[in-house]
Amino acid sequence: MANITVLGSGVMGSAIAIHLGNNGHQVNLWGTKWDRETIDEMKKTKEHTHLGVKIPETISFYYDDALEEAIKDSKLVIIAVISKGIESISKAISPYITEDQYIMSITKGLHEETLETMSTVIRNALPEDLREKIAIIKLGGPLIDKEVAQGKYTEALFASKDIEAAKYVRDLFKSPKFRGGVSSDIDGVELCAAFKNSYAISMGIIEGIEQESNNPKAALMARGATEMANIVEAFGGSRDTALGIAGVGDYYVTAQGGRNGKFGRFLGQDNNVEQSLEKMNHQTVEGLPITKNGYKLLKKLEEDGKINMKKDTPLFLELYQILYEDKPVHEGIASYWASE
Amino acid sequence: MANITVLGSGVMGSAIAIHLGNNGHQVNLWGTKWDRETIDEMKKTKEHTHLGVKIPETISFYYDDALEEAIKDSKLVIIAVISKGIESISKAISPYITEDQYIMSITKGLHEETLETMSTVIRNALPEDLREKIAIIKLGGPLIDKEVAQGKYTEALFASKDIEAAKYVRDLFKSPKFRGGVSSDIDGVELCAAFKNSYAISMGIIEGIEQESNNPKAALMARGATEMANIVEAFGGSRDTALGIAGVGDYYVTAQGGRNGKFGRFLGQDNNVEQSLEKMNHQTVEGLPITKNGYKLLKKLEEDGKINMKKDTPLFLELYQILYEDKPVHEGIASYWASE
Repeated sequence: MANITVLGSGVMGSAIAIHLGNNGHQVNLWGTKWDRETIDEMKKTKEHTHLGVKIPETISFYYDDALEEAIKDSKLVIIAVISKGIESISKAISPYITEDQYIMSITKGLHEETLETMSTVIRNALPEDLREKIAIIKLGGPLIDKEVAQGKYTEALFASKDIEAAKYVRDLFKSPKFRGGVSSDIDGVELCAAFKNSYAISMGIIEGIEQESNNPKAALMARGATEMANIVEAFGGSRDTALGIAGVGDYYVTAQGGRNGKFGRFLGQDNNVEQSLEKMNHQTVEGLPITKNGYKLLKKLEEDGKINMKKDTPLFLELYQILYEDKPVHEGIASYWASE
Repeated sequence: MANITVLGSGVMGSAIAIHLGNNGHQVNLWGTKWDRETIDEMKKTKEHTHLGVKIPETISFYYDDALEEAIKDSKLVIIAVISKGIESISKAISPYITEDQYIMSITKGLHEETLETMSTVIRNALPEDLREKIAIIKLGGPLIDKEVAQGKYTEALFASKDIEAAKYVRDLFKSPKFRGGVSSDIDGVELCAAFKNSYAISMGIIEGIEQESNNPKAALMARGATEMANIVEAFGGSRDTALGIAGVGDYYVTAQGGRNGKFGRFLGQDNNVEQSLEKMNHQTVEGLPITKNGYKLLKKLEEDGKINMKKDTPLFLELYQILYEDKPVHEGIASYWASE
């Protein structure tokens, strides 16, 4: 049994807190100022309506003004805020964090300006004397919040340069229906977690074009996995990360549903980007900024001679052109299919 | 434009012949003695009812007694009979085959007794002086017959030790909606084509147990891909084969539907093997013999110190025990999830 803090009480943060609480750990669930109502609701009803589960007794709630208290005495601090909030929450906790604590990130994306991965953003926000001392773990893999909270069979990957820390945290999550692996390829896991959103848009596109067909989807499933391996390798990581639960697994679940796929399907049915977003009532499509930032990152890698986008990531290149250079969607897909 | 022969006019053979015929090639479609009616029907109606397409003018039909004539003057001979018929058809063509012809196999499986891959069975059936001279190509990837015949976006992999032959054949298949890669890892492609049937059963099982959930399916998608990579590597092939279209791609499409998955779902809903087969009216489940033969193959590899099944293929091991050692299905899945 351990003391754990989850920062961010959105559905994903809450789902993780509930899983850990059900596992017998003492969990402090802290909410941002936008989470106040959600927390009040959970405190009152002892239930999480959206996730469809009871709140275990082992969870304590903290409002946004009680950050220091919320992370004090916790062995593990899990950051579960949206990607735009990563930098500020990391800076906010940095005065209180101590050397013996672990930080885990579950947020997916790349920093808008620096193009850094989420765990690098967290590390850089820490006080300089702690930066290299604190173990940072990245949680990867297919984790649908509701299924995690409800205890469905789930597998995930705990990645950290500090493999002992990764194992420790994995063991906190472990249960008869939660299997966890460990990996030192934290950058590879971060990149797959980000790029799979782009590939899920491409999967939606092909679904929109070739409805009721499986060959085309299967082709892009494999293509996305292969391109993610090429990206991870160019970044110095392991191709096996793309092959495993944080790559193929996460890509599969993202492509099965969600907003990236929905957006892609609208594109595939001959709506342009603006029209597709309108049809979605301008809901957030994670794959959009990730494709933009991902393209910049790959450009940098290409300038360093580490990747050849035309050869190594032809599908991603077409997707970028469809989303940001007004390439007609049918042309982009046809052009990928004609590539070698 | 080339002369091509397709041996076996079942749905898959016919679909391939139709695609190649539509591509402008002269195709001889030869049927076994069980295919006579199908051929008569195609000749009469100029349509393939099941595939839902017209028969192109470029296809000529041959009955089982015209084998020599059917393969004469063809640059490429495609073997598209069921796995049990591979050995006899290969022996039957061996008196007529010449050094300059290419043979391609699209059949998936392992030889019941020798555990050899299909292309090895074909090679060994050839006259000794031709065995090392003739290029044998294996077609891998997600190829649903109807979608191939109807010209939906499709991607495949052409694998051969003779990479120039693989490229030549790939170019025959190439069209705006048919993309093909080449690989020298023919054994890897054969192994993925076989083992993905077993993993598709495991996918069905988890669907039967955890209905409407995606985390569990995603976990087994990634696990199957990783274990196929371990198997291919143990056999001397490349892990990238499992990551690509012949691995992840083919596994994805097989897991999306078909009899392996259906059989698995019955198992997952607490039917034993016999009951599940009964519920399927004893239709063929390809993954069943493949799991049995695959297990024997892995045992041999393990004895040679090339693989550790408990560590490298824990899911396959559980599946084998469920199918052939009466292990209760819930116990098998729970035991996989508890493994490290």
